[in-house]
Amino acid sequence: MGTSIVTSEPANPNRDGGFTRLRLKLAYDGTHFHGWAAQDGTDVRTVQTEVERALATVLRGEQLMRLTVSGRTDAGVHAREQWAHADVEAALLDGLDLSSLLSRMNALLPDDVQLSAVDVAPLGFDARFSPVSRLYRYRLSDRPETADPLRRHEVLAVDRPLDIPAMNAAGQRLLGLRDFAAFCRRREGATTVRTLLRCHTSRTDDGLVVVTVQADAFCHSMVRSLVGALLDIGQGRRGVAWIDELLSQQERTSQVQVAPARGLTLESVAFPPDEELAAQAVRTRRRREAPAGTPATPTG
Amino acid sequence: MGTSIVTSEPANPNRDGGFTRLRLKLAYDGTHFHGWAAQDGTDVRTVQTEVERALATVLRGEQLMRLTVSGRTDAGVHAREQWAHADVEAALLDGLDLSSLLSRMNALLPDDVQLSAVDVAPLGFDARFSPVSRLYRYRLSDRPETADPLRRHEVLAVDRPLDIPAMNAAGQRLLGLRDFAAFCRRREGATTVRTLLRCHTSRTDDGLVVVTVQADAFCHSMVRSLVGALLDIGQGRRGVAWIDELLSQQERTSQVQVAPARGLTLESVAFPPDEELAAQAVRTRRRREAPAGTPATPTG
Repeated sequence: MGTSIVTSEPANPNRDGGFTRLRLKLAYDGTHFHGWAAQDGTDVRTVQTEVERALATVLRGEQLMRLTVSGRTDAGVHAREQWAHADVEAALLDGLDLSSLLSRMNALLPDDVQLSAVDVAPLGFDARFSPVSRLYRYRLSDRPETADPLRRHEVLAVDRPLDIPAMNAAGQRLLGLRDFAAFCRRREGATTVRTLLRCHTSRTDDGLVVVTVQADAFCHSMVRSLVGALLDIGQGRRGVAWIDELLSQQERTSQVQVAPARGLTLESVAFPPDEELAAQAVRTRRRREAPAGTPATPTG
Repeated sequence: MGTSIVTSEPANPNRDGGFTRLRLKLAYDGTHFHGWAAQDGTDVRTVQTEVERALATVLRGEQLMRLTVSGRTDAGVHAREQWAHADVEAALLDGLDLSSLLSRMNALLPDDVQLSAVDVAPLGFDARFSPVSRLYRYRLSDRPETADPLRRHEVLAVDRPLDIPAMNAAGQRLLGLRDFAAFCRRREGATTVRTLLRCHTSRTDDGLVVVTVQADAFCHSMVRSLVGALLDIGQGRRGVAWIDELLSQQERTSQVQVAPARGLTLESVAFPPDEELAAQAVRTRRRREAPAGTPATPTG
């Protein structure tokens, strides 16, 4: 699933009730977007609006083709591999070569968003509910000599060297199936229980510090809150044990700073094999809709 | 020399006639600059002007402190490791901690240029004449799925897949001590003979195509002309043997397209060991000032 194949076949395993589900792979520089999600009734610039507009133009659809996405990134957050689906009237695709859809959409899209691939979604594919995990990276420069002006839009500069072993010790304590209430903006009727699969900090060859965070899914502002807590530990303002204190809390705490959007990029989304896409979507929906505080069913 | 050490020592091996030579390591996003070189009498935005202004402000010098640079990059060309020197009145540095000079200059510099390091230059250091080689990289995306909007300012998108083996076969033919007249904007009284040490094209893990070009030095627009020729070969408009034809020419030819500035970055500059800096500067000066067409003395 890492790279989607752009097919020019008219194969359509996912045609249903006259609609075909398209699968889109996208990348964007979030700097000048007010996030992914369209804000109806406003003229706020969002990635969703730009992509939906390009899709409607190329397909000449009369109705809005709504996109559903794997990661609803906030204002200023970037994506190197974002997935979305749209259900479009099958008739609009008749005789259309999908590789020409790709190039025509890219000709219409602004410079800061790119359609990397498009195909007919495999049966059961749901961009929001089929993923088994999302992987984000947060990039930091903690020394003047590693600050690269060419990457200033995706790297946060901090003014004190980071203690990477301390950040990794803290990351270890966060792993597993837990209630991340302290790190999440609470949403009515939704659980804050997630499975954190990876929380690792490393220094790259070019001297940047990269925090890699992977979970089945993230609540709103969770990645940036996790990074915010790691930064306090990495800069010595807090000890590693503070993490346990945070994990014991039942609700969001103002002790945790939300790290700026600039450093954060959605790097990839993992899906199960095609034959499990539908079942995975059912499992995720059930789990995600569990009331807050209810212990969630562990993933697979 | 890869990373310069910021010293807070008042050591000053290079004080001469009341002046101290500072060595600066810089990085910049060239997108919004009209190149490196100050254009006196205009208000054109250049990297040199920005850095000279910040230096003068921090040192409170009354006279302009002129910078001399390793690579005079054109408008739109970037640098990850650019070197410069400035001779400043030694009295202005008295009692000044160079790490505070670094942070104060960075506080003044705009977002798209960064001072990575500054120290007192070793004796004999000359940013223009001491280098033994410059290394540039030109980055290309030849498929929609490799286009990364976060790197759009430093990667050129081309609309046809590139034949990398053909580009490498062409690169091989360009190597060595040659007259690059066909690729150079002729400058009165200057040779177009250079030693090309590396001209290699590869595909990176993230699917980009990177052309790495290294030479003792480059004439004006030479890197972008070399890349322009390689692109014609990589996209099948020309055969590899065309290179030999170009190398036999005595002057610049309109057959060679100059590739756009956007994809080009000065990545590093190699210097000899400190004790050979002065001798290297003398050798380079002598060679560079040889009349056009004169066979140049080979490096080292």
